[in-house]
Amino acid sequence: MQQTSQNAFSRRRSSLQRKIPRWGADGILFTDICNIRYLSGFTGSEGLLITGRDETRLLVDGRYTAQARTEVCGIPVCEFADKLEGIEQAAAKMGLQKIGFDPLHMNVSDYDRLIRRLKNVKLIPLGEEARMLRARKDAAEIFLMKKAAEIAAKAVRGLACALRPGWTEREAALYLETLARQGGADQVAFETIVASGENGAFPHARPTNRKIRRGDFVVVDFGVRCQGYCSDETCTFAIGELTRGQKNAYRAVKRAHDEAIAAIGAGAAAAQIDALARRTLGKKYSRYFVHGTGHGVGLEVHEAPRLAPTSGDVLQSGMALTVEPGLYYPGLWGLRIEDTVVVKKNGCEMITSMSKDLITIE
Amino acid sequence: MQQTSQNAFSRRRSSLQRKIPRWGADGILFTDICNIRYLSGFTGSEGLLITGRDETRLLVDGRYTAQARTEVCGIPVCEFADKLEGIEQAAAKMGLQKIGFDPLHMNVSDYDRLIRRLKNVKLIPLGEEARMLRARKDAAEIFLMKKAAEIAAKAVRGLACALRPGWTEREAALYLETLARQGGADQVAFETIVASGENGAFPHARPTNRKIRRGDFVVVDFGVRCQGYCSDETCTFAIGELTRGQKNAYRAVKRAHDEAIAAIGAGAAAAQIDALARRTLGKKYSRYFVHGTGHGVGLEVHEAPRLAPTSGDVLQSGMALTVEPGLYYPGLWGLRIEDTVVVKKNGCEMITSMSKDLITIE
Repeated sequence: MQQTSQNAFSRRRSSLQRKIPRWGADGILFTDICNIRYLSGFTGSEGLLITGRDETRLLVDGRYTAQARTEVCGIPVCEFADKLEGIEQAAAKMGLQKIGFDPLHMNVSDYDRLIRRLKNVKLIPLGEEARMLRARKDAAEIFLMKKAAEIAAKAVRGLACALRPGWTEREAALYLETLARQGGADQVAFETIVASGENGAFPHARPTNRKIRRGDFVVVDFGVRCQGYCSDETCTFAIGELTRGQKNAYRAVKRAHDEAIAAIGAGAAAAQIDALARRTLGKKYSRYFVHGTGHGVGLEVHEAPRLAPTSGDVLQSGMALTVEPGLYYPGLWGLRIEDTVVVKKNGCEMITSMSKDLITIE
Repeated sequence: MQQTSQNAFSRRRSSLQRKIPRWGADGILFTDICNIRYLSGFTGSEGLLITGRDETRLLVDGRYTAQARTEVCGIPVCEFADKLEGIEQAAAKMGLQKIGFDPLHMNVSDYDRLIRRLKNVKLIPLGEEARMLRARKDAAEIFLMKKAAEIAAKAVRGLACALRPGWTEREAALYLETLARQGGADQVAFETIVASGENGAFPHARPTNRKIRRGDFVVVDFGVRCQGYCSDETCTFAIGELTRGQKNAYRAVKRAHDEAIAAIGAGAAAAQIDALARRTLGKKYSRYFVHGTGHGVGLEVHEAPRLAPTSGDVLQSGMALTVEPGLYYPGLWGLRIEDTVVVKKNGCEMITSMSKDLITIE
């Protein structure tokens, strides 16, 4: 599979470095491991990245020194025994006095220790700049997300062919994950959801030993990772004949999904897309739609922007996000239809590609 | 599998509630999802728990309302649209004025918004109390960790029987994970490590398409989850005949592992156990041991205490932790030997059970 080129990381850092003065800072401390990966290519689970206006350093502990030196190009890798000491030394060597940081990814304990330690340094909390750093995807990112979506979809199609009444949710989830791994997935992007019948009424259900049976909806919410990038897609299958109520509900959710996707484009307000999905569901259904309409996806399965009633986000071209209306009837059943799209100047492009027409398994 | 009884959650809450006055607070806000699970049984990915001296409330968003009401007993479940508004309302209804919080699991952004919102409430950062909340495991927890370790070990033994030179690391990892899932694991506890030859020199290597060959060490660091509880164990296999250097290194690491485990008991200083492992490795090897000797395990695969040179932790009976010395020769090979133990008044009890004598695969 195509590796994200070192050029891409270097380009992202340059673009960031140009903005540093705008934020009243002379450097930025990155503590979110996904931002660090995005800017450097380092794939470890812990580390720090400090970027000055023309210099960047990656700080890791001993577990990651050798790995970071292999993965990262054009950035010195510094090993630390104590994280705060590492930051202090790097800031001093780089001559930083006003350091921006991401207040969503710095805990109160570290912050308090850091301000005591960096006495002559001003720490500047970044706002939307930090939250939105990775929201607009570049071509290398879209490539990996499409690749992940393709592997996941192939596995879901394989499951749809094999699945029969009598399988447990756990068996179905394992079958699906095995197909995806054999198909080239590095790992799953999140805990696989295979939720049948009444279990489908829990939006984040875990696979159980419940046997799938005729008359069930089966919600399959599945994603994999390729080089860190997540796919996220939900199909709801019908097992045998459904009731008229179930069929109508599926049509209503499909309509809300389609309308929301049709309204996506650069400049659209995220809260408006959410409102449109709810309005399309109508009074009869919308109170059973208990979560937001969607969320950004990338190196994290949930990242900026948010498609929800309280979101202040405005869509920009290159943002990758899910559209996933669903209905949940506690004790009875649930259903959800989800795609991931990338925002374009006019409209959007699909990252996930499975048809969302109802698939019936006999 | 045995469910953690609602009694266990209620007992943990009572024990906590008795300590609240000691911390100068009249309530505690929990933001760490593992602490929330530990105290309530709620298994969702997001939520808040507020405990007063004689009342507890669980706050969740719409995705989790139905699930929380099924999982949690004896605690009202309140749904919020806005997290901070939810906290504000619960604190007001519970009459809380001095709320303790966990500064390791509260980000600077939420904290700033919270202090502005809760004008008449004092927020008190908890220290070791919060970090150590789950460090000492009760019988229900040890039961689940042993169950997880048993499932993982059975899968590792299965892999040892099947593995042959020519398999790729990825194939081996998938085989292992599939066996574990078939054996009853809910999911893996962390990204499976199968690192052969030179890849073993990265402590946190990811499985690659490298073919395993004669003369390799293969580091298999694997764990699964049972009802949230993690197992963590590492075996290093020999493929065919090793060099004398490799055999000596294995013996040295095994000795360090055995000595460290023999020194564990209530009252021992974590830093001393770490120092003993390094001393046992000796001058020849210890500089290739690039990480801490171990870490606590439970609902998180890395939690308190820490067995490392800079750790100030003192072991207490009931703490569950790993002992995992290793050696890493960049470009050549690596090896690690890891068990998880639970601290006893005198000594410790093994949670993982595989022999750590060198297994050779022909």
